[in-house]
Amino acid sequence: MLINDVIVTPIAFRDPPLLNSWGVHEPLALRCIVQVVLADGTVGLGECTGGTTRTEELLKVREAVIGCDVFATGEIERRIDAVLGDRPGIGGGFVGMPSKAARAVFAPIEVACLDAQGKLLGVRVCDLLGGPVRDAVPYSAYLFYKWAEHPDLDGSGAIVDGWGPALDPAGVVAQAKIMIDRYGFESIKLKAGVFPPEQEIAAIKALAEAFPGMPLRIDPNGAWTVPTSIMVGEALAAELEYLEDPTLGQDGMAEVAKQVSMPLATNMCVIGFEDVPGSVAKGSVGVVLSDHHVWGGLRHSLELAAICETFGLGISMHSNSHLGISLAAMTHLGAAIRNLGYACDTHYPWNSDDDVIKNGPLEFAGGTLAIPDGPGLGVELDHDKLAARHEDFLASGRSQRDDTAYLRRVQPDYDPTLPRF
Amino acid sequence: MLINDVIVTPIAFRDPPLLNSWGVHEPLALRCIVQVVLADGTVGLGECTGGTTRTEELLKVREAVIGCDVFATGEIERRIDAVLGDRPGIGGGFVGMPSKAARAVFAPIEVACLDAQGKLLGVRVCDLLGGPVRDAVPYSAYLFYKWAEHPDLDGSGAIVDGWGPALDPAGVVAQAKIMIDRYGFESIKLKAGVFPPEQEIAAIKALAEAFPGMPLRIDPNGAWTVPTSIMVGEALAAELEYLEDPTLGQDGMAEVAKQVSMPLATNMCVIGFEDVPGSVAKGSVGVVLSDHHVWGGLRHSLELAAICETFGLGISMHSNSHLGISLAAMTHLGAAIRNLGYACDTHYPWNSDDDVIKNGPLEFAGGTLAIPDGPGLGVELDHDKLAARHEDFLASGRSQRDDTAYLRRVQPDYDPTLPRF
Ligand SMILES: [Mg+2]
Ligand SMILES: [Mg+2]
Repeated sequence: MLINDVIVTPIAFRDPPLLNSWGVHEPLALRCIVQVVLADGTVGLGECTGGTTRTEELLKVREAVIGCDVFATGEIERRIDAVLGDRPGIGGGFVGMPSKAARAVFAPIEVACLDAQGKLLGVRVCDLLGGPVRDAVPYSAYLFYKWAEHPDLDGSGAIVDGWGPALDPAGVVAQAKIMIDRYGFESIKLKAGVFPPEQEIAAIKALAEAFPGMPLRIDPNGAWTVPTSIMVGEALAAELEYLEDPTLGQDGMAEVAKQVSMPLATNMCVIGFEDVPGSVAKGSVGVVLSDHHVWGGLRHSLELAAICETFGLGISMHSNSHLGISLAAMTHLGAAIRNLGYACDTHYPWNSDDDVIKNGPLEFAGGTLAIPDGPGLGVELDHDKLAARHEDFLASGRSQRDDTAYLRRVQPDYDPTLPRF
Repeated sequence: MLINDVIVTPIAFRDPPLLNSWGVHEPLALRCIVQVVLADGTVGLGECTGGTTRTEELLKVREAVIGCDVFATGEIERRIDAVLGDRPGIGGGFVGMPSKAARAVFAPIEVACLDAQGKLLGVRVCDLLGGPVRDAVPYSAYLFYKWAEHPDLDGSGAIVDGWGPALDPAGVVAQAKIMIDRYGFESIKLKAGVFPPEQEIAAIKALAEAFPGMPLRIDPNGAWTVPTSIMVGEALAAELEYLEDPTLGQDGMAEVAKQVSMPLATNMCVIGFEDVPGSVAKGSVGVVLSDHHVWGGLRHSLELAAICETFGLGISMHSNSHLGISLAAMTHLGAAIRNLGYACDTHYPWNSDDDVIKNGPLEFAGGTLAIPDGPGLGVELDHDKLAARHEDFLASGRSQRDDTAYLRRVQPDYDPTLPRF
């Protein structure tokens, strides 16, 4: 069945003021929704990072994809590679996670093709990937340091959300309680690199006390020097399931890995297949955080999982601000990864109110998301909601994500240079 | 759609007296045909190495597979692993290629599941693997030193075939001419390790003269010492596309690899995912010869291809004596492997007269096999032929392949200990 059209819709949706080592999340997160339309009218859905550049890249490959067989994703990838070449792109959607643009552009198209295949054939996406080895995929509570509200920078008023502030250990624990009460997560990740490490160590220790036995992780996005990373690793030896990207670069990570007891995880120093051989040789990480948006779709993510299994590395899943189409794809993938050893990251609780799927948002139960029912990804687009989110994008005048610039409107001297501590 | 039955049929088919470093092919090659029968009557086909042990292993996992969803191949693999455990098996079907039994047993079942999925859905197996990146898969002319006939050992007469003898360079060139005339192959592989290396070097040089510019390979199955391997590699520096398993073991291969100009290929020192890290660390090979029968099916073979791509290794395909179901599976796989860099090996020309498929044998054109048409693998079983080959197996009294014992009936002092030269 041939592909008749590829529809790309850039959207924006509300995002709370979540802090990280680059700055703070802006009031609107950007994303693209991709519809692959087949000759018989079947539509497959994909979702990826947003903004102007990604939208333009997707539109640039549109003609190359139209006319392809929806099953020929290998050929589609080759065509996208031919259009975009090896141009460096924004894999994870922001500075610090460069990746091949072609890979990030192929990802939502591959997902949409798999969704369309499933809808055409009456089978689930996970069934096209070797079938599920689990019926539900575990996710973790993804905690952030957070302002109480988006500040009133232009006189239109502050934007308050239902989560409250989280600027100290007590605030972090309170946020965890809300999130675990609502969704039942059984692992916790704290996005760090925001406050001095002693304060973030205290937050993890407070979480360990509040949630005894719960697997905990901390991710400062490379904000720490090697000595600081080792210090934190030693201080949290009893608490951490893994330590995520404490420092930048494979050499630094390898040095830290030698000195701390828990595995190091990464979505920053191993973000493409070209990074794997060096990482294996140096022993820089113990767990790779896959992300189908960055690694070029679901099948490539399964390849990454096989590589991790082969080289004795763990595999888990990274997330960026996303909606339900991505969550459904992550869940079909997570169901099929035989060696998935950890609960996956997801930002969905922070953004799900603005989802563009019908009958949404998708609902976690006991911290897991069951494989969505129905053919393909098991989600359908709500076209009214999509149109509204597209209007929000157009009205925003935004072109890209820039956490640093946004923080600097409040704190003009903010220096995001890493390592910070 | 659930699996209602798994039918395992051990068969035997005529095989010419092909020589290798273990001995000589017996008059009958052994194979198993696997039929996975779905609840709606759809039947998927698989083929694998034969004999009593493999048949028993397949029957041992039958109950664990019945009742599974045909799409749940990951779960089926887990169940087969649970039944057979890590028991060493006979991956490639003969001594010198041990592998996990579970992997070799899963392989034909996975292929049969994919065939059944395709038949159920009306799509080709390659479409379930990411789609073809080529419409036809190139194969190589697989030459063997060969007796003129199977000797008359029991008074029932010698068995002559249409190929004639090949016991010197001229015989090898004559065989190549027949095979290339018939099938149009554009690469040549010589199975070696039979005669002193000087004679085999002369055969390759004769082939290079007879077929100028044709990619050539030689494979003594580990029959040579490291110094002999280096000597051959140097002598054939201008002629060889790759040098296949000149010596046994990763350390020896790594030593040879450092000294010769062409890549080393293997289907003997990297035969499972557990062999990959050591091989990468030592640099023992440049090309991995995949084999879905050994590596656990088509999806695992694609994982191997991704590993090779990631670590800068080439990938090609190994073969054992086989019939058309295996060739169809190899072709769907080869069509989907984006980094397939070499013509694949196949024994099919030696055995295709006894194929058990309808409208067979499959036909090469210009040395390639086009992806078979039709859903699934695109081949159907001829039940009369299958029954006849099963009768041949039962009548043979054979239980396993033993090239050495067969050669010793003619040459009682034959010592297959490697390295021989
Ligand atoms: Mg991270
Ligand atoms: Mg070989």
